[in-house]
Amino acid sequence: MEKIKVGIVGYGNLGRGVEKAIKQNPDMELVAIFTRREPEQLATGEVKFEHISVAEQYKGKIDVMILCGGSATDLPEQTPFMASMFNTVDSFDTHAKIPEFFDQVNALAKQSGKLSVISTGWDPGLFSLNRLLAQAILPEGTDYTFWGKGVSQGHSDAIRRVPGVKAGVQYTVPVQSVIERIRAGETPDLATREKHLRECFVVAEEGADQEAIRQTIVSMPNYFSDYDTTVHFITEDQLKAEHQGMPHGGFVIRSGITGEGTKQIIEFGLKLESNPEFTASVMVAYARAVNRMSIEGLSGAKTVFDVPFSYLSPKSPEELRRELL
Amino acid sequence: MEKIKVGIVGYGNLGRGVEKAIKQNPDMELVAIFTRREPEQLATGEVKFEHISVAEQYKGKIDVMILCGGSATDLPEQTPFMASMFNTVDSFDTHAKIPEFFDQVNALAKQSGKLSVISTGWDPGLFSLNRLLAQAILPEGTDYTFWGKGVSQGHSDAIRRVPGVKAGVQYTVPVQSVIERIRAGETPDLATREKHLRECFVVAEEGADQEAIRQTIVSMPNYFSDYDTTVHFITEDQLKAEHQGMPHGGFVIRSGITGEGTKQIIEFGLKLESNPEFTASVMVAYARAVNRMSIEGLSGAKTVFDVPFSYLSPKSPEELRRELL
Repeated sequence: MEKIKVGIVGYGNLGRGVEKAIKQNPDMELVAIFTRREPEQLATGEVKFEHISVAEQYKGKIDVMILCGGSATDLPEQTPFMASMFNTVDSFDTHAKIPEFFDQVNALAKQSGKLSVISTGWDPGLFSLNRLLAQAILPEGTDYTFWGKGVSQGHSDAIRRVPGVKAGVQYTVPVQSVIERIRAGETPDLATREKHLRECFVVAEEGADQEAIRQTIVSMPNYFSDYDTTVHFITEDQLKAEHQGMPHGGFVIRSGITGEGTKQIIEFGLKLESNPEFTASVMVAYARAVNRMSIEGLSGAKTVFDVPFSYLSPKSPEELRRELL
Repeated sequence: MEKIKVGIVGYGNLGRGVEKAIKQNPDMELVAIFTRREPEQLATGEVKFEHISVAEQYKGKIDVMILCGGSATDLPEQTPFMASMFNTVDSFDTHAKIPEFFDQVNALAKQSGKLSVISTGWDPGLFSLNRLLAQAILPEGTDYTFWGKGVSQGHSDAIRRVPGVKAGVQYTVPVQSVIERIRAGETPDLATREKHLRECFVVAEEGADQEAIRQTIVSMPNYFSDYDTTVHFITEDQLKAEHQGMPHGGFVIRSGITGEGTKQIIEFGLKLESNPEFTASVMVAYARAVNRMSIEGLSGAKTVFDVPFSYLSPKSPEELRRELL
């Protein structure tokens, strides 16, 4: 069987995750990694690096481009550019801008006859799928999404701007007792701050007033003042040893009612040691789907809502029915 | 907007669940309930009951038939019969026979130009979807399926055959400590009996030897002897008050590895106060999908693996992208 030829655009944490995920999928091969940096600087011998400007030369040689840039500035430019030449998968996650992003990519991909699945990953992505599924099955009910335990980049940046702070990292932590109440059948009205704690690990500069730093952090508006926030002071060595990972995860729970007040609860959860490696693995599965749907003649923009799960698997429909149904 | 016209075949717990679920979905209307009993006996005035033998008269008047019979003898006969005239949804759950059932229904539905989604519900159904999804995303990993806490009909029947037992019910209960080990990242090799406890609630006949009953139950081969089994003796009133519900649920967990040994865990869980009402709600969502796919010209047999989630929802693709992605 011919392998699915994949290109990666962008070589940060997510791009490296995709590179690793492709190795776990024997029906795929990595053709080249496209970057805005000097390709020579990245060359490892094992993989081909190319400057993003020569991507056009790969038309017909790559079945799916997996776009690993950020949603703020990279993807709004790169997805439309690539969709005019290749099938693509991205993880565009600026929720408010998804409708216009979809329309733009859809128009370009229809024109080029290519297929783009936008906004894959886990939120948007797997969490979105579970929100849709649970609402469709239980029309009467309440949805809850919890995030974490995981690093929030924005909150970590906010900590680092506090005077006297040398380094720091912030974890968003779902409140376990609230999750247990929902699992037990309660449907409380909850603001995001009631569902999550904020836990900060801070390296203070030598001689800095730790109590003043703590006060500045916990009283910071928008970021921390509305939350139950804990600040731990640690050494630089501890930060390196214990806080370099990129764990994340969360829960989507729908608590609904059928018949005359019968409680039914659907829950989906992720516990991830590496957010970018997991997101990358989701994207690679959707790259397989994109390739198949494109071969079947589909074009334009799609989302995870439009992709049957059978297209995500390397197994045949017969195998899936026999082994997994 | 014209409503989706639904027929129900079979009026046991599942059929009654579908009747209730249709009321929660304003885009659907119940046309008639088909039964092998005398329709007059069931008539409530609110809903039309018909004998199953007149189903043919409803050709063109019903968009989707939801088949609520059992997998042992009803569905092997009713799904092929109905698929030759109507779009259908069923919850055929004899795992080993799914491939041949699929082939048979596929041939008939292709011939009639109708669409049949077989084996919906939650296992097979939502659990199958999650097994597929998690394997596609994490090719290296271990799968676990836990069932319960829920009533096992076969084990309850086995209890009732024990001399001196007047009535009884058996719950299959997942072992919480094992689930916690898996959530914590362990990937133990486990037999079904290591993942589940069996909890029995028994009403003894007057003067019966309770200790002898307990011994007979816990040492019963295949059913109980390999399991950690608890027997509680209760009164008939307690049985009626506390054990008439049909709760069920369970968990599908995949513990996988990305990159160089990075642990990633995907979990899906259900906690259901009524197994038949929940299964019915899943079937009704798939009936919506069947109607849409049929309108688009698809025919033959399909499974949950073939249905994009967008088809399950009454919302438009634009609404789904804006509200749920």
